[in-house]
Amino acid sequence: MNYKQVGYIISLLLLMEAAFMIPPLAISIYLAEHAAIRGYIASIVIIMITAGIMYWFCRDRKGGFYAKEGMVLTGLAWIIMSMLGCLPFYISGEIPRYVDALFEVVSGFTTTGSSILTNVEALDKGLLFWRSFTHWVGGMGVLVFLMAIVPLSGKNGGFTLHILRAESPGPSVGKLVPKMKKTASILYLIYVILTVLDLIFLLIGGMPLFDAVCTAFGTAGTGGFGVRNDSLAGYSPYLQNVTTVFMLLFGVNFSCYYLLILKSFKEVFRDEELRLYCVIVFSSIALIAWNISGMYANIGEAVHHSAFQVASIISTSGFATADFDLWPNFSKAILMLLMIFGACAGSTGGGIKTIRLLLLFKSLKRNIHQQIHPNRISHIRVNGAVIDEKVITNVGVYLIAYTMIIIVSFLIVSLDGFSVEANVSAVLATFNNIGPGLAEVGPTCNFYAYSTLSKLVMIFGMLAGRLEIMPVIVLLSRQTWKKV
Amino acid sequence: MNYKQVGYIISLLLLMEAAFMIPPLAISIYLAEHAAIRGYIASIVIIMITAGIMYWFCRDRKGGFYAKEGMVLTGLAWIIMSMLGCLPFYISGEIPRYVDALFEVVSGFTTTGSSILTNVEALDKGLLFWRSFTHWVGGMGVLVFLMAIVPLSGKNGGFTLHILRAESPGPSVGKLVPKMKKTASILYLIYVILTVLDLIFLLIGGMPLFDAVCTAFGTAGTGGFGVRNDSLAGYSPYLQNVTTVFMLLFGVNFSCYYLLILKSFKEVFRDEELRLYCVIVFSSIALIAWNISGMYANIGEAVHHSAFQVASIISTSGFATADFDLWPNFSKAILMLLMIFGACAGSTGGGIKTIRLLLLFKSLKRNIHQQIHPNRISHIRVNGAVIDEKVITNVGVYLIAYTMIIIVSFLIVSLDGFSVEANVSAVLATFNNIGPGLAEVGPTCNFYAYSTLSKLVMIFGMLAGRLEIMPVIVLLSRQTWKKV
Repeated sequence: MNYKQVGYIISLLLLMEAAFMIPPLAISIYLAEHAAIRGYIASIVIIMITAGIMYWFCRDRKGGFYAKEGMVLTGLAWIIMSMLGCLPFYISGEIPRYVDALFEVVSGFTTTGSSILTNVEALDKGLLFWRSFTHWVGGMGVLVFLMAIVPLSGKNGGFTLHILRAESPGPSVGKLVPKMKKTASILYLIYVILTVLDLIFLLIGGMPLFDAVCTAFGTAGTGGFGVRNDSLAGYSPYLQNVTTVFMLLFGVNFSCYYLLILKSFKEVFRDEELRLYCVIVFSSIALIAWNISGMYANIGEAVHHSAFQVASIISTSGFATADFDLWPNFSKAILMLLMIFGACAGSTGGGIKTIRLLLLFKSLKRNIHQQIHPNRISHIRVNGAVIDEKVITNVGVYLIAYTMIIIVSFLIVSLDGFSVEANVSAVLATFNNIGPGLAEVGPTCNFYAYSTLSKLVMIFGMLAGRLEIMPVIVLLSRQTWKKV
Repeated sequence: MNYKQVGYIISLLLLMEAAFMIPPLAISIYLAEHAAIRGYIASIVIIMITAGIMYWFCRDRKGGFYAKEGMVLTGLAWIIMSMLGCLPFYISGEIPRYVDALFEVVSGFTTTGSSILTNVEALDKGLLFWRSFTHWVGGMGVLVFLMAIVPLSGKNGGFTLHILRAESPGPSVGKLVPKMKKTASILYLIYVILTVLDLIFLLIGGMPLFDAVCTAFGTAGTGGFGVRNDSLAGYSPYLQNVTTVFMLLFGVNFSCYYLLILKSFKEVFRDEELRLYCVIVFSSIALIAWNISGMYANIGEAVHHSAFQVASIISTSGFATADFDLWPNFSKAILMLLMIFGACAGSTGGGIKTIRLLLLFKSLKRNIHQQIHPNRISHIRVNGAVIDEKVITNVGVYLIAYTMIIIVSFLIVSLDGFSVEANVSAVLATFNNIGPGLAEVGPTCNFYAYSTLSKLVMIFGMLAGRLEIMPVIVLLSRQTWKKV
């Protein structure tokens, strides 16, 4: 393990985090929110000191940086960043318990959107801004951002590759251009452009600037923190529809947008993952709209709410316009499945990812063929290209680890005595980075009532879900820390 | 596809089924149960005619019998046997709807034990006997039984192997002795001896003969049909404890018993699957006993009920001594997990099987090592022997198919409007061949209220679960029926 390389990058990351706190601090100063100002200044000082100490010890870094270091760096970076990033909430006294503040900020960075706040509107604006901003920062990955802006090391190209592999969602990292660093920059540029577009459409619809910026952050990161207690239910149907569209857009693999510039729409739409994503989205919208049509004035309204909720859950955003906990069980069952499915790889969404579903389905089909014709050898292809068997194995292992973590979390959370529905959906909603669950943690409720132990389990789940398990497991594995 | 070989074996199987109906018919004659007598005689005639026609068309069978034929035979055999085996219930008029009668007998053969009967005690004794007898017949596999008694074909050894592979639970078939046919006979002998032992212990405890025979059948097949409305709650603690022990014994891989005769206890207990099974059983008993201790007079009683229920669920029997639907959520969560885990491979129990959990866990561990040391190659070993990578892949694919079937079933069943808890547990309880679920299908309730569509889905689930999916999927695959 190359501690110094890891420590060096984390120190840079903390400097970046401190810089990110300046805009919300500015808002708090402008609005004279004294508690928040105190919180930010103290936090920035603590983060700078920590970064300085780490930098000092790691300044003479040298030597290799491999897959293991990439995993450990990513796992540690997210944990440390969260432990320090929650300080403004805690020091300002607005969230009195440290574990709650940590839950809230992890929920932010991992773009989950589950909240322990019982009254969102009571929070200082400066803190509300930070809460939504963490979604935007975490959405595309903090280390990817660092790679895109900081010239880390000319001689060692492995840096960016290993970090992108560990931090980016999906079973394999696609290179848009030969250079990894440039790939990261292009992805971030697309991210910024889409966010700005979303913001413009929200402002056109008459949303107040502060609300629009925060909502755009929450949509872009597919996070789901709102600035109002009723999430997005109080805004106009136009604003809700804009958000529906952008949630779905942010759930698409960003490389599709890059290809859209280079190639024709028709060619991009041949992408098998994108097609499956569209099929799941539109069939879910239709089924739920049919199922809830009796509850709304007309079919148009049913489609409106169904589309918003499907987009919100499959993109793992977690905004709400209606209390879907009151919908019939069939609709709830579909939403629960969408929680697990999640968005496309290479998007800001969470969950298992559409490409993994596609690979699972294809490998099941292959296995059936092999049962019937045991001696025939066949490869799995996606978009015409043969998929490496290692990728297939890793998808299987991912699913195993996924299931095991869900099961153990569910068992521990069950100790709190909430309903099975609440516990299952709470675990799924946090692990898949969605936000609200059902029953006691439904869209009109929050996670405040869970015990500290359950909150810690969910914090672990949110991080493991965002980083797709492996970095977190590698971090905890004895093997990693063994001296060779 | 060699239709004639498949048809020939099914015709033999149907003859066997008709013969199996003679003992319950005798009981009905003895007790002068006229409706049941009429039902049995008509059923036997129908079955004999069907068998005769099939035999006539397939008597000039020849040619190969391979993996595909083994799968198709197994799938078809179970479906046809169930469709005819439910006739006594239906023709006698004791279960007026055919789909309910089919549900009941599939639940019997697959050793599930879910019932649509609202009043078990009202059924004729002769029919009650058949209901429990189907558990015993289905437990070790009907085709395995046929292989063990009928000299099918001297020249083609592939017969028994392919059938055992398709019908026996577990990721791979272990040969106890070089000849497959002899392996089948040994397994059945162990099965008979254990059943008789169970019966003797029940009779010693003063259980009436009829009840004891039926309970022994239900325990041996890990089925769970009882002859009383309150399942086993009304019997003495001694009888309940005997059943606890035997349910656990029937959940163990039968090859362990064979090795016990040849080798020492210590050597048998080195078996990794057996160890994991014991760890899961004893830790679950301890956790639940601790969790429910406040509900019972003393810790002894809590352990008594906890042990019975854990044994009942992990062995996938489904007997009940207490309404565990009233237990705290943590206990219910553990029971729900045990529903999925299931018993050992090569036992009469259902579920995913302990050996698969072991393999999943080991392949997860290997993958973590590979993430840290990408160039090291390592094999997965169980009991010291290297496991073929193909087996590992198949376990992964099994899990995928398992999850997909559960998800789709859950969605369809959700249309009926029961609670999420009831729907999830109903699907899990039928697919894993357990019996009772939670909430509306808890141990004091039944499956009667579900719609015909849901019942058909669960019938499919019970069969797919018992045959471990592949035979059923192969049967439904277009590929199977293509002319080469």
